[in-house]
Amino acid sequence: MLATLSGYRAVSRRQRTLPFPSPSRSPIAWSTGTQEMGSVTVYGPPISPAVSRVVACLLEKDVVFNLVNIDMSKAQHKSPDFLKIQPFGQVPAFQDEHTTLFESRAICRYICDKYADRGNRSLLGRRGGGLVERAHVEQWLEAEGQSFSPPSSTLVFQLAFAPQMGLPQDAAAILLNEGKLAKVLDVYERRLEESRFLAGDMFSLADLSHLPNGHYVRAGGKVELFTSRKNVARWWEEISMRPSWKKVVEMQRAPPSF
Amino acid sequence: MLATLSGYRAVSRRQRTLPFPSPSRSPIAWSTGTQEMGSVTVYGPPISPAVSRVVACLLEKDVVFNLVNIDMSKAQHKSPDFLKIQPFGQVPAFQDEHTTLFESRAICRYICDKYADRGNRSLLGRRGGGLVERAHVEQWLEAEGQSFSPPSSTLVFQLAFAPQMGLPQDAAAILLNEGKLAKVLDVYERRLEESRFLAGDMFSLADLSHLPNGHYVRAGGKVELFTSRKNVARWWEEISMRPSWKKVVEMQRAPPSF
Repeated sequence: MLATLSGYRAVSRRQRTLPFPSPSRSPIAWSTGTQEMGSVTVYGPPISPAVSRVVACLLEKDVVFNLVNIDMSKAQHKSPDFLKIQPFGQVPAFQDEHTTLFESRAICRYICDKYADRGNRSLLGRRGGGLVERAHVEQWLEAEGQSFSPPSSTLVFQLAFAPQMGLPQDAAAILLNEGKLAKVLDVYERRLEESRFLAGDMFSLADLSHLPNGHYVRAGGKVELFTSRKNVARWWEEISMRPSWKKVVEMQRAPPSF
Repeated sequence: MLATLSGYRAVSRRQRTLPFPSPSRSPIAWSTGTQEMGSVTVYGPPISPAVSRVVACLLEKDVVFNLVNIDMSKAQHKSPDFLKIQPFGQVPAFQDEHTTLFESRAICRYICDKYADRGNRSLLGRRGGGLVERAHVEQWLEAEGQSFSPPSSTLVFQLAFAPQMGLPQDAAAILLNEGKLAKVLDVYERRLEESRFLAGDMFSLADLSHLPNGHYVRAGGKVELFTSRKNVARWWEEISMRPSWKKVVEMQRAPPSF
């Protein structure tokens, strides 16, 4: 159960991980404490929105995984070994047994399909809900990827990462993308007036996928984009209080030292 | 079979379509000529890249469908009835029996799942290929949506649609996005050195999804982005010669008068 999530623990036995530049300490395993060490490994720092999307999905699915840091300040994401499984040089990269994948939303779909009978079984539609329920999740997951993500990703960079990196903020880009995001959230407000979650009455991958960028946009001072819209506010409150996401935020605040 | 595709024909019997502003003439049906009239309707003009993505998928799957124009010059895509199924006011909207959907890539996945046993059965991975094959398709479909689509969509607008609309072209935006697209195609070039198609040795939804924007970028004068890369050139030649896509181009060149 999600309530039993116990947090980080160091892994002492040898991991079958990709031949990336070795982290200075052992890989980190995220475990519920009730399961055997899994074969799933996520490569990338949890502060990355795309990495945290995959981590949130794994926690929802109650899948044990290893989290291996990729030190982007040392350009490890551009190393030849990393590029073999993430050819765009981005994070995360993902491995499960002999399968390697990139693109966070594709990885999430794979996790839901592969571990269909574990943890939250409704992330791609209720079991037995069939292809139409899945299609509704896919529809709003694509809305996240195509409509919500572009403006919110710019805001995440400008509001959250640029200050941390000592870069100047682009006020015009913030204003422009805040306006674009507001229009997207206006659509969500109408949708969430008639539906508890985006794809229906169950929390799904479509909702989950919004958490990483939404969190940073709010943390960057743009809370009102969400709170000024009654249904969006109610929806955000509910999805961001899930134990899986609270754990991700905890991981982002106090990342393990690698 | 795809080779039997016979083209447009007017539909005389009453269609069960959404209550949009009626087109001036009957809806248009795309039929193989060998099947009964289907219940699938696509709303939107085939010159739209997202509409043509769905149309190409339906043709690959040999699914009969009605194509109902949405006159964007008359803002029919912003009408209250249209917004009920496409809340962002974009095209396409899609209907199959009682199911309505938006977002072209989500619609394509639904078509492949719903009509699994019809037409091309490998668009989401070979039948029997299992979840790993599907995940590889999803991975490259997301690469299209997240990496190829943003710069190519800007180029499509600047190179193809702005001139048609009498709008000035933004030379800086063209230069910037041509550079971004070149970097994406460099990644594709390396991938396509080891693989016939993006997701493996079979043409898939991941390849198909690149056709709409790729076509307009080339038609807009940027052919060299593709031809200067040996494997990308070979890949493009193969995927763009499929009967399904050739039919879509024909539909774009001579759209039916609605």
